[in-house]
Amino acid sequence: MGYVIGIDLGGTNLRIGAVTLDGRVVHRLSRKTEVELGVLSIMEGILADIEKVMEGVQGMELMGIGLAIPGAILIEKGIITQSPNLTGWDGFHLRDYLSERLTHPFFIDNDANAFAIGEGWMGRARGIKNYCVLTLGTGIGGGIVLNGEVWHGPDGTAGEVGHIVVEPDGCPCRCGGWGCLEVYASSTGLVRMAKEVGCGGEIPPEVIAQRAQAGDELYKGLFHRLGRYLGIAMATLVNLLNLELIIIGGGLAKASSLFLDIARDEIKKRALKMPGERVKIEITGCGDDGGVLGAAYIALSGVRGQGRLEPKI
Amino acid sequence: MGYVIGIDLGGTNLRIGAVTLDGRVVHRLSRKTEVELGVLSIMEGILADIEKVMEGVQGMELMGIGLAIPGAILIEKGIITQSPNLTGWDGFHLRDYLSERLTHPFFIDNDANAFAIGEGWMGRARGIKNYCVLTLGTGIGGGIVLNGEVWHGPDGTAGEVGHIVVEPDGCPCRCGGWGCLEVYASSTGLVRMAKEVGCGGEIPPEVIAQRAQAGDELYKGLFHRLGRYLGIAMATLVNLLNLELIIIGGGLAKASSLFLDIARDEIKKRALKMPGERVKIEITGCGDDGGVLGAAYIALSGVRGQGRLEPKI
Repeated sequence: MGYVIGIDLGGTNLRIGAVTLDGRVVHRLSRKTEVELGVLSIMEGILADIEKVMEGVQGMELMGIGLAIPGAILIEKGIITQSPNLTGWDGFHLRDYLSERLTHPFFIDNDANAFAIGEGWMGRARGIKNYCVLTLGTGIGGGIVLNGEVWHGPDGTAGEVGHIVVEPDGCPCRCGGWGCLEVYASSTGLVRMAKEVGCGGEIPPEVIAQRAQAGDELYKGLFHRLGRYLGIAMATLVNLLNLELIIIGGGLAKASSLFLDIARDEIKKRALKMPGERVKIEITGCGDDGGVLGAAYIALSGVRGQGRLEPKI
Repeated sequence: MGYVIGIDLGGTNLRIGAVTLDGRVVHRLSRKTEVELGVLSIMEGILADIEKVMEGVQGMELMGIGLAIPGAILIEKGIITQSPNLTGWDGFHLRDYLSERLTHPFFIDNDANAFAIGEGWMGRARGIKNYCVLTLGTGIGGGIVLNGEVWHGPDGTAGEVGHIVVEPDGCPCRCGGWGCLEVYASSTGLVRMAKEVGCGGEIPPEVIAQRAQAGDELYKGLFHRLGRYLGIAMATLVNLLNLELIIIGGGLAKASSLFLDIARDEIKKRALKMPGERVKIEITGCGDDGGVLGAAYIALSGVRGQGRLEPKI
């Protein structure tokens, strides 16, 4: 029986999974990314992990490997052009590097795009052709699927939903702009907003969520603000693209009861009637496996010679 | 020799042209739309105009007719679902109506989408596959072309760039939302902003432009504000879709020297590096003929049985 390996390389967590052709993760490996080690050490670690996963699923045939990277990638050349969460990776020739070290066919894409494909394969977007994912984590990632295919754009930088401008004179963003969704609806943004309203020093996002869940109005207000900006950005997405579904993933998805209805309400008030009524807003159906599943599916379609980014099965 | 008729039905102007297969407008007819007459009278007027145009190009064979409508259309069924600029047209079964009255094949699309196709056929977007048009008129229309095809979305409502939210607590918009680009960068928005800063009653947009061009700082400031919001919306577009080109059309395009560099500057400051450097911002290359040419090309591709919305020739 054949299988593929999906690798989801995040700025914080590294997840690797052996995935069967029908989308079951039969072997998992996950650890911290250790970004500070630099690109070559991290890549060596990943190569060693691949070996470990292969040992864990003996008796099955590895058909290909998919790798999801946080950042903009020139997919055909396999060059990482900009990765704010992986310091020192800009300009890294990932395809060339892997070509010399892997004997199995491999395929690369952006992590949020992979997550979108994972949702299309095994998650909430099964059977849906026009949707978008937003991963609310340290930053905000995005993947836009139109007519069943990820929209990359000519430079592979499309889908940056975290940099929809939601506040024209808002806070500075690490992208160089300001007032982007990311500075209000990421966990980093949440921590900053807590500081701004006088909650004290660096309160971890989990603690902010716990206090809001316990009913503290000040902390609930932070999630209200997050949900409102999220809804504004999603109204823009819906008006522009007439999407059927928007899926929320990333670490903050676990706290969705604190902000998702506020975001839905904001869309209802703001989006044009027909696309606003059409769109559904849901939480990831893949949990932490979305990126691994998407990377696996990218490898699977690549090996099969299908449209490599076609999440349909 | 064959030709097609392109009809650009706007909320203010109605333009009809006989267009050769290589994109020359050989006969033109234009007049006020007279929206107040209602849908049936307007349609009867258009049918009479078609006869007039056919008389004007005798000796040539009419191959098909393209009709561009301001509003959201279910293209396959030919039903107008929402048209804020044509009162009383919502729910009108345009395809059924025309089927009983036209003997030539006909094709329908949204006016901004048609304009986008016109730019791809004969204007600034020739040879470009990923671009967007913004028509700055009474309202703001938009057409998004991805990989050489207009992106309609499942309900045909996509491309509503006028309803990108640029000011979260901004002015009410006729769409039911507030803070949309349209309330700051349309001619209606410009007139309202002039009122707000105390310029007096309803000053026509042409007069506002004249005073700004004459160097009046107050009036120049209005265009500065318009350009800034336009740049914010375009930065969002570029970050989301990684477009190669954004084309500005509509009545306000004639005053572009007053706001376009401000908008370009705003994009440079805000958009992600690679897509921000890639994108070009230009003024329409079709003048007032964009909609007519686009509608003609839609008819032409339809008759030829090509992807109907494929602006490539």
